[in-house]
Amino acid sequence: MPDGRERRLSALCERLTVEQLDALLVSSPANVRYLSGFSGSSAMMLVGQQDRLLITDYRYATQAAGEVGDVARVVIESTSLWDGLWAHMPAMSAVRVVGFESAHMVHRDFQRLLEAGSRWQWRPTTNLVEGQRERKDAGELACIKEAIACAERALEVTLGRTSIGMTELEIAGVLEAALRQAGSDGFAFPSIVASGPNSARPHARPGERTLEPGDLLLIDFGARVGGYCSDVTRTFVAGAASDRQREVHEVVRMANERACRGVRAGMSGRDADRLARGYIEDRGFGDWFGHSLGHGIGLEVHEAPRLARTADAFLATDAVVTVEPGIYVPEWGGVRIEDDVHLGTDGARVLTQFPRELIGIG
Amino acid sequence: MPDGRERRLSALCERLTVEQLDALLVSSPANVRYLSGFSGSSAMMLVGQQDRLLITDYRYATQAAGEVGDVARVVIESTSLWDGLWAHMPAMSAVRVVGFESAHMVHRDFQRLLEAGSRWQWRPTTNLVEGQRERKDAGELACIKEAIACAERALEVTLGRTSIGMTELEIAGVLEAALRQAGSDGFAFPSIVASGPNSARPHARPGERTLEPGDLLLIDFGARVGGYCSDVTRTFVAGAASDRQREVHEVVRMANERACRGVRAGMSGRDADRLARGYIEDRGFGDWFGHSLGHGIGLEVHEAPRLARTADAFLATDAVVTVEPGIYVPEWGGVRIEDDVHLGTDGARVLTQFPRELIGIG
Repeated sequence: MPDGRERRLSALCERLTVEQLDALLVSSPANVRYLSGFSGSSAMMLVGQQDRLLITDYRYATQAAGEVGDVARVVIESTSLWDGLWAHMPAMSAVRVVGFESAHMVHRDFQRLLEAGSRWQWRPTTNLVEGQRERKDAGELACIKEAIACAERALEVTLGRTSIGMTELEIAGVLEAALRQAGSDGFAFPSIVASGPNSARPHARPGERTLEPGDLLLIDFGARVGGYCSDVTRTFVAGAASDRQREVHEVVRMANERACRGVRAGMSGRDADRLARGYIEDRGFGDWFGHSLGHGIGLEVHEAPRLARTADAFLATDAVVTVEPGIYVPEWGGVRIEDDVHLGTDGARVLTQFPRELIGIG
Repeated sequence: MPDGRERRLSALCERLTVEQLDALLVSSPANVRYLSGFSGSSAMMLVGQQDRLLITDYRYATQAAGEVGDVARVVIESTSLWDGLWAHMPAMSAVRVVGFESAHMVHRDFQRLLEAGSRWQWRPTTNLVEGQRERKDAGELACIKEAIACAERALEVTLGRTSIGMTELEIAGVLEAALRQAGSDGFAFPSIVASGPNSARPHARPGERTLEPGDLLLIDFGARVGGYCSDVTRTFVAGAASDRQREVHEVVRMANERACRGVRAGMSGRDADRLARGYIEDRGFGDWFGHSLGHGIGLEVHEAPRLARTADAFLATDAVVTVEPGIYVPEWGGVRIEDDVHLGTDGARVLTQFPRELIGIG
């Protein structure tokens, strides 16, 4: 299979050698998918230098065989994934010191390692797979681009079918059906459709509120293709925009443009965040931009790297990140414009193309 | 607020006394919502005998104030929820021994407790809140019933708009838009729309496959109202059913009916599972029913109790559980019929009403 799984597994095994680990127990579903191709919700993977095991349950028997192929030995366990692990692990050769994913293993399961798994030595690890995932390969980038194309087609359809008088829930329904129609195999996260004062809540959920003349309408959503997410936000206005709405929107648009132009691999997440935040502060809206500028997208909608005031780490080459400045005025409303940007070796490239002007809805 | 949060918090505090804990750090989002009403995705709650703290981030500032009200003191933390915890915890009176949720705290965060939180004694706990959540109060039951009504309205609409030649993705789009139209404030889980041989995979995701004459069509989905989930499955046939399809469907329907009639509070999860499994085995299909009979639903779509071969625990009074027997024949197809059942003091009551016969799609 030319999808990079063998290369990823080899790179991981090299890293295990450096870390003096004989194997890694992978419990994050996104990490399992990245390494094995398995897309189900319930699985653990044990990656050793010689042997690889993927343990899942009955519901996924057919799917796991098809998705995983030769990349790992699939074990179907009818009661608990842990029973499968303890049954098959002793036969794995030369496995004595085993890493586990500290950010993805709950305390209860960590206790299992110490008790039922006491014949092995367990070592906490962080970011062994996530670090690899930060740099997207060509196949991954193609999936993200297709997820962006899906989202943009769906947003266009939605814009054509949205009118004053519809509820946020109805607009969300139109958007989500259009995403399916465009071929999205899921939703990257729960859609945000926020009208009027609701748009001042950055993570509002759609409700029964009706779109009224003069409302801002913030739509933040994403498609999923081959497991990979897009994440796009646009803010519209119902009817004619007020001067204040035009002003706030323009500040956000300029902040977005500056950050999209300035961001690049090798820069710290803090410096990237500064590109937009500095401008918004200079324009006097700094108090109303309380969240971070962006985050990586991939198999998860929030993944490394972070573009934030507290992010010291450097942005990796071939990461795909969101750039999503916003201004939120309590009671009044909010504006956010979010694009997805690929940090290539030869500069950054904005992948989203949907117009960024303040479009009015009739 | 007459929504039971104060009663829930009092009951939890009584339990903390029994467990000799001065406070509990609640990190499961569903448990936070149950106790505080906060519906955002990022929060921690510290429940002490005197004081209650809810820590969330900037994105949820307005929402948290509105949802939580007087039930807890809301702290908005701009960088990490943990910074908020360490900043405010020292001022909490008489808090020395603190429980944490072993099933919801990842190892990395557990290490924070031992390091940054070393001035307190930390004790792992399990099911302190989940145990309470198993018994639904009147308000919760009303939400679940409304989520079921939403799902049934959406399924009826979808059935009227589905025809041979549509793809699984298109059908999912119709279903999800109808859910929004019916007032669902989200999806209980990723919808399953599986046609033909795909229906043999209990957790299939909708794809580009077209509905063809003679296909089984399995639809498993749920609405969400006030945070509470419904979970419903019906299996249809495209055109006229074959004898084999009719036979398999009838066995599943009878198994569902027997379990719905026989299940009650006080029974073990194993005995409940047996009600359907025994019948399916007697009819010779035992090998093709590989998953459990059901699970509790509430703020999460999978919660306590379990109805399964390995479930020793007794089903609590006022739990709401799914009853979802299925028969899956690889390559050929699968049938599942799933209802939601309330285990009341005066017997069980099936809450779902959508017809269970094998309906043909034209």
